[in-house]
Amino acid sequence: MSTTVWLIFSLVCGVISLGIGLYLYFWVKKQDAGTDRAKEVAGWIQNGARTYLKKLYAALIIISVIMSAILAVVYTIDGSGRGLTTALSYIFGAVCSAIAGYLGMEVAVRANVRSATAAAKNLSDAFNVAFRAGAVMGFAVVGVATIGMSVIYLATSDPQLVLAFSLGASSLALLAKAGGGIYTKTADIAADLVGKVEVGIPEDDPRNPAVVADNVGDNVGDVAGMGADIFDSYVASAVAAMLLGASMNDPFYTVLPLLLCALGIIASIIGVYLVKVKDDGKPGKALNMGTFITTGAFAVLMTITILVLPQIDNRFIWAILVGTSVGVIIGQTTEFFTSDEYKPVQLTAEYSGSGAAITIISGMSYGLISIVPSIIGIVIAMLVSFYVCGGNADFPMGIYGVGISAVGMLAISGMIVSADAYGPIVDNARGIAEMAGMDEEVIDRADVLDSAGNTAKAITKGFSIAAAALTVLALFAAFVSEINMALAPHGRAFTMEEVSLVNPLILAGIFLGAMCPPLFSALTMNSVTKNAFEMIEEIRKQFREEPGILEGTVTPDYNRCIDLAAHGALTSLVLPALIAIAFPLIVGFVMGPKGLTGFLGGAIITGVIFALFMSNSGGLWDNAKKYVEAGNFGGKGSEAHKAAVIGDTVGDPFKDTAGPSLNTLITVMSLVASTFAPVIALYHLIP
Amino acid sequence: MSTTVWLIFSLVCGVISLGIGLYLYFWVKKQDAGTDRAKEVAGWIQNGARTYLKKLYAALIIISVIMSAILAVVYTIDGSGRGLTTALSYIFGAVCSAIAGYLGMEVAVRANVRSATAAAKNLSDAFNVAFRAGAVMGFAVVGVATIGMSVIYLATSDPQLVLAFSLGASSLALLAKAGGGIYTKTADIAADLVGKVEVGIPEDDPRNPAVVADNVGDNVGDVAGMGADIFDSYVASAVAAMLLGASMNDPFYTVLPLLLCALGIIASIIGVYLVKVKDDGKPGKALNMGTFITTGAFAVLMTITILVLPQIDNRFIWAILVGTSVGVIIGQTTEFFTSDEYKPVQLTAEYSGSGAAITIISGMSYGLISIVPSIIGIVIAMLVSFYVCGGNADFPMGIYGVGISAVGMLAISGMIVSADAYGPIVDNARGIAEMAGMDEEVIDRADVLDSAGNTAKAITKGFSIAAAALTVLALFAAFVSEINMALAPHGRAFTMEEVSLVNPLILAGIFLGAMCPPLFSALTMNSVTKNAFEMIEEIRKQFREEPGILEGTVTPDYNRCIDLAAHGALTSLVLPALIAIAFPLIVGFVMGPKGLTGFLGGAIITGVIFALFMSNSGGLWDNAKKYVEAGNFGGKGSEAHKAAVIGDTVGDPFKDTAGPSLNTLITVMSLVASTFAPVIALYHLIP
Repeated sequence: MSTTVWLIFSLVCGVISLGIGLYLYFWVKKQDAGTDRAKEVAGWIQNGARTYLKKLYAALIIISVIMSAILAVVYTIDGSGRGLTTALSYIFGAVCSAIAGYLGMEVAVRANVRSATAAAKNLSDAFNVAFRAGAVMGFAVVGVATIGMSVIYLATSDPQLVLAFSLGASSLALLAKAGGGIYTKTADIAADLVGKVEVGIPEDDPRNPAVVADNVGDNVGDVAGMGADIFDSYVASAVAAMLLGASMNDPFYTVLPLLLCALGIIASIIGVYLVKVKDDGKPGKALNMGTFITTGAFAVLMTITILVLPQIDNRFIWAILVGTSVGVIIGQTTEFFTSDEYKPVQLTAEYSGSGAAITIISGMSYGLISIVPSIIGIVIAMLVSFYVCGGNADFPMGIYGVGISAVGMLAISGMIVSADAYGPIVDNARGIAEMAGMDEEVIDRADVLDSAGNTAKAITKGFSIAAAALTVLALFAAFVSEINMALAPHGRAFTMEEVSLVNPLILAGIFLGAMCPPLFSALTMNSVTKNAFEMIEEIRKQFREEPGILEGTVTPDYNRCIDLAAHGALTSLVLPALIAIAFPLIVGFVMGPKGLTGFLGGAIITGVIFALFMSNSGGLWDNAKKYVEAGNFGGKGSEAHKAAVIGDTVGDPFKDTAGPSLNTLITVMSLVASTFAPVIALYHLIP
Repeated sequence: MSTTVWLIFSLVCGVISLGIGLYLYFWVKKQDAGTDRAKEVAGWIQNGARTYLKKLYAALIIISVIMSAILAVVYTIDGSGRGLTTALSYIFGAVCSAIAGYLGMEVAVRANVRSATAAAKNLSDAFNVAFRAGAVMGFAVVGVATIGMSVIYLATSDPQLVLAFSLGASSLALLAKAGGGIYTKTADIAADLVGKVEVGIPEDDPRNPAVVADNVGDNVGDVAGMGADIFDSYVASAVAAMLLGASMNDPFYTVLPLLLCALGIIASIIGVYLVKVKDDGKPGKALNMGTFITTGAFAVLMTITILVLPQIDNRFIWAILVGTSVGVIIGQTTEFFTSDEYKPVQLTAEYSGSGAAITIISGMSYGLISIVPSIIGIVIAMLVSFYVCGGNADFPMGIYGVGISAVGMLAISGMIVSADAYGPIVDNARGIAEMAGMDEEVIDRADVLDSAGNTAKAITKGFSIAAAALTVLALFAAFVSEINMALAPHGRAFTMEEVSLVNPLILAGIFLGAMCPPLFSALTMNSVTKNAFEMIEEIRKQFREEPGILEGTVTPDYNRCIDLAAHGALTSLVLPALIAIAFPLIVGFVMGPKGLTGFLGGAIITGVIFALFMSNSGGLWDNAKKYVEAGNFGGKGSEAHKAAVIGDTVGDPFKDTAGPSLNTLITVMSLVASTFAPVIALYHLIP
C-alpha cells in the first residue's frame, strides 16, 4: 500500500465530511423559520452578519494579494522555482478557510430563528436544529481542510506548499478571530452598559439600538471567528507533523497526519450521529457525551490502524493517547476554575460584596493560578510523547512524536467545532425569542439550551488551547528543521544544539517574542474600549434625540451601531496584523535564524500563558455574576451583583477577544517564520 | 596594586557609608518630635511597625536555620569542606540585610512625626528631615552590603561564599518584600473601602480602626521591604559578576564589582549631599536632580578608574555607560505611561465616565503596552554590552560585560534608595499631621512633599526593574558556569551550546519556570483580598458595636487591625516562599541542569514582563484617579471618580504587592539554583 492510497482515503473522507455538512445545511434551511416578526428580527441579524463578512473578506483579499505577491517574488528570486505554486497554495488556503467560515455563518444565521421557532414545540427539536447547524460548521471545517491538504500533497508531494496553504488559512483566522472578537465585545459591552446599567431595560430588548449588533457579534465572533481559528490549528498541526516527517525522509510519516485527520472525521461522524436529547433531557450532558464518544472512537480507530500498518511505529499510539487524555484532563481542570460548583467562582462572588475592586483582583488571581494545571499537562504531554517515541536516542523521532500527538488531539475537531458552534446559535435563538416577543416558556427552553452551550464551551476551550500549544511546539521544531534544510545545500547546518538559551542573541529574541502576546492582547482590548466608548455615545444619543425609542413606539437605528462595530473592528486589525506578520520577518531578517528561534519560543510561552489566564479569568467572572444572579450573596440588584457585573464586563474582552486570539497569533507567527525560513536562513543582518 | 588593595578600598567605602548613615540617624533623632498628640500618634505607628518586624525576623530565623542546616549538610557531604563556611555566610547575609532594614525602619518611624512637625515651620526643613532619614536607609543598605561582601572575600577569596551571603540576603528580601506588600495593601484597601467608600470619612481619619495599620504598612512595605529588595539586587548583581569573573580565572575581574560598588558609594555621597530644597522649591525636581548628579558622578569616577587601572579592559566602560543610560531612559518611558501629563492616564480617566469595567480594561491594556519600551531597552543593554565587550569572539567576556553593566546600574543604589525611602516617610508625615489635627497649611506642605515622592518613585521603579532584569540575566549565565565548573573535575562539561531551546526537556523547564511569576503574584494578591476581606469585617464590626467611634468620642481598637494585617501577611508567605526556594530545587533534582536552566530562563522572562505590567498598570490607575480628583471629567464624587477609585484599588496590590515582589522572586530562584548547582550537576533524576 503506497502513500497515494492513504492520500486518496483522506481525500474521500474529506469529501464525505463536506457532503454531510452540506446535507445538514439544506436540512436546517428546510425547517420552519417562524412568524413574520421572528423572520424580520432574524433578517436584521443576517444582514448585519453578511455585511461584516463581506468587509472582512475584502480586507482578506488585500492581505492575500500582498502576501501572495511577496511569496511569489521571494520564491522566484531564490531560484527554487516555487514562486507561483507557493502563492497559489497560499490563496487556496485562505479561500478554503473562507468557504468553511461562510458556510458556518450562513447556516448559523438561519438556524437561530429556526431553533427559537422549534423551541415553541419542544426542547428536543430546538436542540436538534441548533446542534445540526453547529455540525455544518464542524464538518465543513475538517472536510474542506482535509480536502485542501490532500489535494495539494497528491498533486505536488511538496509539504512546503501545504505550509503555504496553512499560512493562507491562518491569515484569515487572524482577521476573523481578532476582528470578530473586537466586534462582538464592542457591541456586547456597549449594549449592556447603556441598556442594562444606565436605562435598566433587559438583555436583548429590541428598544436597545445596539441589540442587533450584539447578536451579529455572536455570529461573527463566536461562529465565523472560532471556525477559522480551529481550521487554522487543525491545518497547522498537520503541516507541522508533515514537515517533521519530511525532514526524516519518510514518505509514510509525512502522510500519517492526513490519515489521522481522516480517522478523526469518521470518529466525529459517529459522535455527532449519537448526540440526542429527549424533551426532559440535559443538552449539556449530550454534548459532552458526544465529545467523549468521538474521542473513544478515534482512539480505537487510530490504535487499530497503526497496529495494522507496518510502516508506522507502534509507539506513536502512546504519544497520541497521552496527548488526547491530557487534553481532556485539561478541559476538566478548566471547569474547576470557571464553574460555579467550585470555590474560585463562589469565593469571587462572595468577595464581590466588598466592592468591584476585590472582584477583579480575586478573579485575576484565580485566572493566573488556573494556568498551573494546564501548563503541567502540556509539559507532561510534550515530555511523554517525546520520550515514549525514543526522543532520548533519536531526537527527530521524539520531536515527530510531539507533533503527531498534537495532530491526534486536533483530529476530533469535527465534533469539537460542532459542539462549540452550537453555543452562539442558541444564544442567538434566545435573543430572537426575546426580541420577537415569544412566550415565556420558549425563552425558558432557550435558556436551558444556552446554558448547555456555556458548559460545553469551557471544556472545549481548555482542550483547544492545549492542542494549540502542542501544535506550535511542533511548528517550532519544524521551523528549525526548515532552516537546517535550507542551509544544507550550502554546506552549513543549523543544529538544535546551536540554539543555546544562554546566548544573548537568543535571549534577546525570547524577550522580544515574549512581549508580543501581551502587546497583541492589549491592542485588541484597547480597541474594544475605544470602540465601545464610541458606541455608548451613539446609543445615548439615540435615546436622547428620539424619546420614542424607549417608549417602544419608534424602532431605533440599528444600522448605525452595526456600522460602528464593523468599521471599528476592521480598522483596529491593522496593528495586530502587523505584529503577527511583519514582526517575525523583521526579527528574522535582522537577528537571523537564532534570534528568530528565540523570538518564536518567547512568543509561544507568553502566548499560552496569557491565553489560559485571560480565557479562564473571563469565564470565572461570567459565572460569578450568574452565581450571584441565582440568588447568592444578595442576588440581583445587590452590591455584590453590581460588582460582579463589572467583573463580567472586564472578563468579556478577556475571554472573547484577547485570550482566544492568542492561539491564532502564535500559530501565524510560527507559520510566517517557517514559510520564510529558507530565505531568512541565507539572508540576515546579524551573523 | 593587588586585589587586596581594591578590597580594602571598598571595605573602607562601605564603612564610611554606614558611618554617614548612622550620623544621619542620630541627626534625625535629635529633631523636634512635636506635640504630645503627634508623639502619641507616631508612637502607635512605631509600636505597630516594631511588632511586625519582630514577627518577620522570627520567621526569618526559622527559614535561616532550615536553609543553613541544609547548606551545611549538602556542602559537607559533597566533600568540598565548605559546609560550615557556606552556612555561616548565608546567615551573615540574612543578618546584614536585617540590620540595614531595621535601621531604615527605625529612622523612618521617627522621621515621619519629625518631618510633620518641621512642616509647621517650613517646607525646606520638613524635606530635609524626610530626605536625610531616607538617606539613612540608602547608606545603610549599600554600606552594610559592601562591608559584608568585602569581608567575606578578603577572608576567604571564595566567590561561592559571597553567593551564599547573597542568598541569605535574598531570603530576607523575599519575606520582607512580599510580606510587607501584603501587609500594606491589606490595610490600605480595607481602610479605604470601609472608611472612605462606606462611611465617608477622609483618608487618615483617626476614627478609622485600620488607620494605624495603614500607616504601619507604609513603613513595613515601602521602607523595610523596599530596602531589603534593593539590598538583594545590589548584592546579587555583584556576586553574579564576581562568579563570572572567577570562571574566567581573573582575580581582578572577580573583584571589579566590589570596586564599582565603592565608586557608587562615593557618587551617592556627592549626590545626596547636593540635594537641597528652598522653601518655595520643588522637592520632586530636587530628588531627580540628585539621581542625575549621582549617575553623572559615577560615570566620571568609573571611567577614570577603569582608564587608570591597567588590569581592566577599557571596553567595560561602554558596557556600564550603555546599561546606566538605558536604565535612566526606561525610567523616563515609565513616566509616559504613569504620569497624568500624557495620554494613557488621561484617556483612562476619560473612559472612567463609562464605568469601572472600562477603567480596568484600559489600564490593563496600557500596562501591557508599557512593557514594550522597557523590554526593548533591556534587550539593547544586553546586546550592546555583550557585543561591545567582544562577546562574538570571546563568549565569557561578553557575558561578563552584561554582568558588569548590571553592577554599574546598581552601583548608585545609595542615592536611589534614599530618594525612594523618602516617599513613605512623607506619606506617613501627612497621615500623622491629619491624625494629630495639625493646621491645614501643614497638611498642604505635607501634600507637596508627598506628591514629589510619587514622581521620584515612578522613575526609580523603572530603573530598578531594568537593573534586576540585567542582574538575573548575569546570574543565569553564572548558574551555567557553576554547573560547568562542578562537572569539570569529573571530566564532563556543560557548555552553553548544550542548552538548546528546541530540546523538549528545556522547553518543559521554560514552561514550568514561566508559570511561577504569574502564580506567585496571584498567590500574594489572593492573600491581599482574603486578608482585606477579614479586616473589612473587623472594621464594620467595630463601627457597629461601638457607635462612639464614628462620633469621635471613643478611640477604636487599632491593635486588632494591626494584628490581623501582621498575622495575615506572615501566614500568607508560606506558599510563595516554597515556590521561590523549593520549586527550583525540585525541578533541578528531577529534571537536571538542563531542565533547571530552562526553568530559570522561563521565570526570568515572565518575571520581568509581569513586574513591568503590574507596576505600571497600578501606577497608571493611581494617577488616573488623582487626575479625576483634580477636577477633570466631573471631579470628586462623579461617576468617573467612583470608577477611577475602583481602578486605583485594583492597582494597589498590582503595584505594591505582586509587581515589585517579582524582582525578588526571580533573584531568589536564580541564587538558589546557583548555590545548589554543584550538587544538582552531579545528582539528578532525568539524565
